[in-house]
Amino acid sequence: MTAHDFVDAHIEAIQQQFFALLRIPSISTAPEHAGDVQQVAHWLADDMRRIGLHQVEVIPTARHPIVYGEWLGAGSDKPTVLIYGHYDVQPAVKSDGWLNEPFDPTVRDGFVYARGSSDDKGQVFAHVKAAEAMLANGGRPPVNLKFLIEGEEEIGSPNLGAFVKANTEQLKADVCVISDSGMPTADQPAIVYALRGLMTMELIVHGPQVDLHSGSYGGSVHNPAQALTEIIAQLHHPEGSIAVPGFYDDVLPLSDQERVELHKTGMSEAEWRKNTGAPQPYGEPGYAIHERTGARPTLEINGLAGGYFDTGFKTVLPAKAWAKISCRLVANQNPEVIARQVTDFIHSITPSTVTSEVRLLGGSPPALVDLNAPAMQAAIRAYERGWGKRPVFMREGGSIPVVVDFQKELGIPVILMGFGLNNDGAHGPNEHFKLEMFQKGIHTSIHFCEALAQ
Amino acid sequence: MTAHDFVDAHIEAIQQQFFALLRIPSISTAPEHAGDVQQVAHWLADDMRRIGLHQVEVIPTARHPIVYGEWLGAGSDKPTVLIYGHYDVQPAVKSDGWLNEPFDPTVRDGFVYARGSSDDKGQVFAHVKAAEAMLANGGRPPVNLKFLIEGEEEIGSPNLGAFVKANTEQLKADVCVISDSGMPTADQPAIVYALRGLMTMELIVHGPQVDLHSGSYGGSVHNPAQALTEIIAQLHHPEGSIAVPGFYDDVLPLSDQERVELHKTGMSEAEWRKNTGAPQPYGEPGYAIHERTGARPTLEINGLAGGYFDTGFKTVLPAKAWAKISCRLVANQNPEVIARQVTDFIHSITPSTVTSEVRLLGGSPPALVDLNAPAMQAAIRAYERGWGKRPVFMREGGSIPVVVDFQKELGIPVILMGFGLNNDGAHGPNEHFKLEMFQKGIHTSIHFCEALAQ
Repeated sequence: MTAHDFVDAHIEAIQQQFFALLRIPSISTAPEHAGDVQQVAHWLADDMRRIGLHQVEVIPTARHPIVYGEWLGAGSDKPTVLIYGHYDVQPAVKSDGWLNEPFDPTVRDGFVYARGSSDDKGQVFAHVKAAEAMLANGGRPPVNLKFLIEGEEEIGSPNLGAFVKANTEQLKADVCVISDSGMPTADQPAIVYALRGLMTMELIVHGPQVDLHSGSYGGSVHNPAQALTEIIAQLHHPEGSIAVPGFYDDVLPLSDQERVELHKTGMSEAEWRKNTGAPQPYGEPGYAIHERTGARPTLEINGLAGGYFDTGFKTVLPAKAWAKISCRLVANQNPEVIARQVTDFIHSITPSTVTSEVRLLGGSPPALVDLNAPAMQAAIRAYERGWGKRPVFMREGGSIPVVVDFQKELGIPVILMGFGLNNDGAHGPNEHFKLEMFQKGIHTSIHFCEALAQ
Repeated sequence: MTAHDFVDAHIEAIQQQFFALLRIPSISTAPEHAGDVQQVAHWLADDMRRIGLHQVEVIPTARHPIVYGEWLGAGSDKPTVLIYGHYDVQPAVKSDGWLNEPFDPTVRDGFVYARGSSDDKGQVFAHVKAAEAMLANGGRPPVNLKFLIEGEEEIGSPNLGAFVKANTEQLKADVCVISDSGMPTADQPAIVYALRGLMTMELIVHGPQVDLHSGSYGGSVHNPAQALTEIIAQLHHPEGSIAVPGFYDDVLPLSDQERVELHKTGMSEAEWRKNTGAPQPYGEPGYAIHERTGARPTLEINGLAGGYFDTGFKTVLPAKAWAKISCRLVANQNPEVIARQVTDFIHSITPSTVTSEVRLLGGSPPALVDLNAPAMQAAIRAYERGWGKRPVFMREGGSIPVVVDFQKELGIPVILMGFGLNNDGAHGPNEHFKLEMFQKGIHTSIHFCEALAQ
């Protein structure tokens, strides 16, 4: 009996285990559910021990524990896969609009409805069950396996980065797989192969030492709120590209092949209009909307403040004005280089009548997995076998901090192998997961290990 | 005995009346002092009746009363002077740093220290005592007199404008005198002959219908915070003048004579640096600092807001961003014309990727009294006789709403005839008024009436 046969033969029992996992309300943000979060961690650890993983531990952090387990029996000449997921969930109460109690998994039309079904218990549990199938009856998985399942993803993973950094030897692997995302439709698998990085800063333009009366001094003082707008307005060229010298220097250009591939799933202008309601598209000339949001860097003004902004009016000439600025970065841009370029440019265009202070707030590099890398080729084959269809490739405009942590601390590619659907309702009422996709996900995880070992 | 002789002969008694007036804590903003405010109104009305004014009334308003009194015995062929002042005062407690109880007038080195001594009981009472001197012993003032003394100046005169508008016939006059300001030094009288007007508006730049995630949409949407800066940055030319077409069209140019006169009291660059602490002066080329703040119009950004502005960072792409914009206006600019010009220009430079909404908040015209007008010439002669020195002429960069009310509703010139010193400490601790200036003020008020009648 192959691992695949095991899955199909035991799918009823596997689903019942999945439903049991869904019944524990491991809401990480709610202190009153801290015990439930602990309970799920131990439930998972028990299951991981039962199926034959080694070194299974529930590792305490400052808040919710991390569950770790491994199987290294494939030998050091075989690849090691680090599987990351999370067992905590978003809050949910029936009165939010659920048709069933959110922690009473209910099957309707082939979907299981429950909080965490898609995000992320179902997706991470598919990998655990793939390991069980490969280990069943004395089986030996073709690759080494390491599981890292955290309980704080929905509260921003406050303790994961430090854990990864402190345990790089234990977590050493050749590839990381994260299944915590969706695909466009149930029969079209998709791989996100690029995430944008982020650089955040604050700009403060200083003028007079204190707020002045605009009647007494207006006309003789360069109003910092005005000067701020004059500086920010120079950060983009009028046609929409970014005017900071050198900003695009390190950007890897899109290949013709990539552009064709991205076009398959990219947001159309009609969708963009429906989703944004903005008057007209904007952005860097020469790129389609989905390229501007996924494959090209940006510079955004995320906040503006200065002077008086309550109801009514105050004729203040403010002492200073602020802006929050962020750049979304793409490979191979470096957040520190970009921060320096933006800072230098701001200083160079600041007139002598005011002063500019730039405070760097944070930065994380972009992520890009080479579509020709062996791990990516293995993921493609796994989807082809699990779904019967070649996956499409997508770039995601946002950032996923854990991906950056894994890349930075472990130096390995991260494959974002989603088993859910974009409209599974993660974070909303009636979150659901298609049971057929749960089963296909288990098979795909096995296929991935098999393809990776070849 | 002339009116002037009467003043000098009775100065001790007049000072004692002034001190009695200072003892009543008519703090208009404090509900617990509402009775004191009433008491001062009646105290003043009683004094005005006693000295021979007619139609003396304490006129209730929604909060604190207005005191009115008149003497029209000079005849309809003689000018009528409307004297405006206020009997209410700012709050004061000894613990703010007073050397004496603020409502226990105390004389030191020829100054009386008490709240309201300069602002404005002393200055307005000088006019009342001038009227007493002219009316004493069956005397007949050379002009008709109308007194309008309010009790709400320190809380923004919420009821005065409506009163003036509703009583234009009763208040009809040829000139209005306001003594509620200071002169540079005790021996240098000064007349403010111009006040800037004001136009206030709010600009809202709209982009997407709701706040978006800058990771998902950044690069494809014209960020309204960015677009706002791009619009505002175009409102000034880089060298400091205002770029709104037609903005300067109606501005009366400064004559060479005015420039020479203004230069005598204008803020020097050294004073400007000390007062503002700003890195470098800014403004319209070709004009000195004091001309930029007094004689030229401005366009100021008084507030900016948009997106996220708390601590930390939120990668929001905001649905809209706001600015509060005001223009200080000079003769003969019209607030409605300026509002339309600024609005039209903003709409004309708004790109098609966002929309601009402009909300007009308010407007008041500038004030400029012709230095050659008979009333102004009378004021000059009055100061020359009262102080023995020709007054200097100043332009004030701010606006005084009551001046606008008198100009607009009554159509008469307003002479700002200050008897105080700029450093009398109005609104602060140890407010004081030089008793010599109180006496000179009474004489100057009489001289003004005499000069006006000639």
